[in-house]
Amino acid sequence: MSTETEKAKPAKPRKLSSIQKWDIETDVAIVGFGAAGACSAIEAAEAGADVTIFELASSSGGSTALSSAEIYMGGGTRVQKACGIEDDKEDMFKFLMMCGGKQADEAKVRAYCDGSVDHFNWLVAHGMPYKDSLYNHRAIMALTDDCLLYTGNEKAWPFKDNAKPSPRGHNLQVEGDNGGPLFTKIITEQVEKLGVKVHYEARALTLITDDHGEVCGLIVRIDQQEKTVRARQGVILCAGGFIMNKDMLKKYAPGIVDNETPIGNPGDMGSGILMGLGVGAAAINMNEFFISLPFYPPAQTTFGIFVNNQGQRFINEDCYHGRVGWHAFQQPGNRIYLILPVDDFKAPDYLFADICGTGETVEELEAEIDVPKGMLEHTIAYYNEHAKNGEDPLFHKSAEWLRPLEGALVALDCSYGRGAFWPCFTLGGLDTLPTGEVKTPEGDVIPGLYAAGRTACGIPRTGAGYGSGMSVGDASFFGRMAGKSVAARGKA
Amino acid sequence: MSTETEKAKPAKPRKLSSIQKWDIETDVAIVGFGAAGACSAIEAAEAGADVTIFELASSSGGSTALSSAEIYMGGGTRVQKACGIEDDKEDMFKFLMMCGGKQADEAKVRAYCDGSVDHFNWLVAHGMPYKDSLYNHRAIMALTDDCLLYTGNEKAWPFKDNAKPSPRGHNLQVEGDNGGPLFTKIITEQVEKLGVKVHYEARALTLITDDHGEVCGLIVRIDQQEKTVRARQGVILCAGGFIMNKDMLKKYAPGIVDNETPIGNPGDMGSGILMGLGVGAAAINMNEFFISLPFYPPAQTTFGIFVNNQGQRFINEDCYHGRVGWHAFQQPGNRIYLILPVDDFKAPDYLFADICGTGETVEELEAEIDVPKGMLEHTIAYYNEHAKNGEDPLFHKSAEWLRPLEGALVALDCSYGRGAFWPCFTLGGLDTLPTGEVKTPEGDVIPGLYAAGRTACGIPRTGAGYGSGMSVGDASFFGRMAGKSVAARGKA
Repeated sequence: MSTETEKAKPAKPRKLSSIQKWDIETDVAIVGFGAAGACSAIEAAEAGADVTIFELASSSGGSTALSSAEIYMGGGTRVQKACGIEDDKEDMFKFLMMCGGKQADEAKVRAYCDGSVDHFNWLVAHGMPYKDSLYNHRAIMALTDDCLLYTGNEKAWPFKDNAKPSPRGHNLQVEGDNGGPLFTKIITEQVEKLGVKVHYEARALTLITDDHGEVCGLIVRIDQQEKTVRARQGVILCAGGFIMNKDMLKKYAPGIVDNETPIGNPGDMGSGILMGLGVGAAAINMNEFFISLPFYPPAQTTFGIFVNNQGQRFINEDCYHGRVGWHAFQQPGNRIYLILPVDDFKAPDYLFADICGTGETVEELEAEIDVPKGMLEHTIAYYNEHAKNGEDPLFHKSAEWLRPLEGALVALDCSYGRGAFWPCFTLGGLDTLPTGEVKTPEGDVIPGLYAAGRTACGIPRTGAGYGSGMSVGDASFFGRMAGKSVAARGKA
Repeated sequence: MSTETEKAKPAKPRKLSSIQKWDIETDVAIVGFGAAGACSAIEAAEAGADVTIFELASSSGGSTALSSAEIYMGGGTRVQKACGIEDDKEDMFKFLMMCGGKQADEAKVRAYCDGSVDHFNWLVAHGMPYKDSLYNHRAIMALTDDCLLYTGNEKAWPFKDNAKPSPRGHNLQVEGDNGGPLFTKIITEQVEKLGVKVHYEARALTLITDDHGEVCGLIVRIDQQEKTVRARQGVILCAGGFIMNKDMLKKYAPGIVDNETPIGNPGDMGSGILMGLGVGAAAINMNEFFISLPFYPPAQTTFGIFVNNQGQRFINEDCYHGRVGWHAFQQPGNRIYLILPVDDFKAPDYLFADICGTGETVEELEAEIDVPKGMLEHTIAYYNEHAKNGEDPLFHKSAEWLRPLEGALVALDCSYGRGAFWPCFTLGGLDTLPTGEVKTPEGDVIPGLYAAGRTACGIPRTGAGYGSGMSVGDASFFGRMAGKSVAARGKA
């Protein structure tokens, strides 16, 4: 008797002994051609392995292609040095450990920080153009061709008190929101140049294991036909997360089962995670998610304040938008407002929040929104009284974003489920070592199986600590580690 | 290569084919002799099965013996009717679904509510004395021999707006905090009367499975020796939760890995969950936990207010203490204060929070505690202004608990990690059907395996919705269901 819906079911592996013939043979089979798949393919191929990628879509890129392809790197990259940024990898380490919260993976954060400058150089050696320039604005991404920007909570309380802030988001040298496509173009060329075989519109169905549990291939569906794939050295799962799979959300991340704006590509159905689970892998951190209220740009919205249904502030508004969204999502009641001065009002570029109130005075504004009478007035009065001295005794917002809210005001309705944009994606996945090897709940590695990108649980672990560049950073870095591991396995 | 610490490892099952001889043979083997184990044993034995219980401790009771043994029941029990309480099982259903949040298990909640009156009658038929009386006070438990009391958030916002409140906690007819021992005494006698064999100081090590994955016994350690146990009809795991297992907390519930006041018995090491995981069971909701600030009794503390590090209120203080604790645990910053009038001040019975400030005026008090200057003054002024009209515009605390905070005030330091009592326990466990059958991640049931109590994931799913009586209620009710199921399996 089965009570699960089909789409949340682990993919039952096929037994090696049941395979009659191999349709495709390769050293390394990679499922998914986003950043993780591409980078693992390059490392494995450069180490001499015969590599084949199976991609569900008709082209490469995965969710990376849809992103800005910012990559979180630090500890003294060429660009950081050129811009006079003195970053220390220990500060990066402290910061990323804080970002991961109680579930941070110290071994992975350590590997990621220690290898960060090398990772930058590797990307450059593989054709990625980074301009030696700083984009010193509060933004979600650089729309210029500048490189370095702050992309997380580095300069915001409480992070700034624990680790010296540095800009670590590295944006490709390209104008506009074109980082993802450029990254994809370059990395795809690199993959092709190495002779990696790529099957598009190829749906990986399940893994093939031998009697000892070793992964030795997989089944893919190409042109309506099931093909058997022999992977002599191993399989790397880089098939994205599960934000598009409502059954999996219900089971693993019920907090966002009702979300209406999943961020990812249609292939983010958790298929890689389900294939791993099917062969006994552990999935961890599955309840955690990124959820955001992208209320900037324009940067000047940071001068505003967020209030909850009680009319209370709840966050320093100079945080990364994801941290603001994560905290907003936890607030009691069902209203979240962003209060801004009318004077230099400009609607946020990505938020799609309706104006739900305006007022020449706070009292007028308050009468138009759903907060207890008098609360907004106090919240603003208190904020203003200290903002004029460059202080925020409640949440320690930085002085540069403190300015009394004066004159006519406007309120944006940012409430969840009432029209504002609340993008989200999953932060759980297969439990892997820094090498990309996939672990069982016992902590043993499954021979022949690797995972990277959002199919694995990587550096980003909580919505409260997420920053832009951590996903593509994690995917590209640990994709490479997986590619190296599988290649080394072949030689062993 | 293994990277897990031993105590978080699933217990690898033994193969049936490796068993030379059976040291013990029984129809039904039950691991753990708390409420779940006892109730499952009774149902199985009454249905004619030969039943054997293996209990780690030297006596019966498990965590139930340490509790007040309140049981959450409603929909018109004998006691409710005698006390003139008109409860409807649909209100109970709506309430419990709200308590479970987005991860509520509708099938279990439905079974629990539909079977609640019958469960009460079953307990009475098995010797449990319940007085037809109401204990109409705000308390964690009834220290009199009265029966019925409100034990959750029934009368508190937002629950009261969605389901008609009724008292549903049923307390045994015994003076003092002696419900757990009395429940244990009676249920143990019932178990013994039925001829159930009990092995104390018997540590269950792992399950035995046949080649088809069917559970057909287990290995226990008794008197330093490993014994093989044949369970002809099945094994029921009732071995408690995992709050005492730091390795499991780190892996599954990192939010409370640093807690210093786990609630449970020393056997709550997750051994039942690990045995289930070892044979391919799914564990769900593992990140969730109960965490409390037991700030009443005395009930009059409910007239106080909680404020966070920002000096803001964050909860209606007439909530169940666990809901208050859960919300307090989510607050930004690292201070939580309970503000009370000095006039009728009496230290909470269980909170152990130090007095960290007093003042003839709010200003004086504020100067002694760590909140931004002026915030407490506004919070109290606003609260008082509305409390005198019986209103709480922020959190809708009930009028009966609203009284302006006047005269000299005292602040209790309830901050996490600074001495106050923050009891907690786990709310995740094996994924089971309402029948007690244990499910795999595929949603299939594992033949011969059952679980109940905190080894399973039951009715209580979040700390925000927990109420007293839900654990022993869930354990006793679904323990019975498991006992019935295993007995029916024997007949099939």
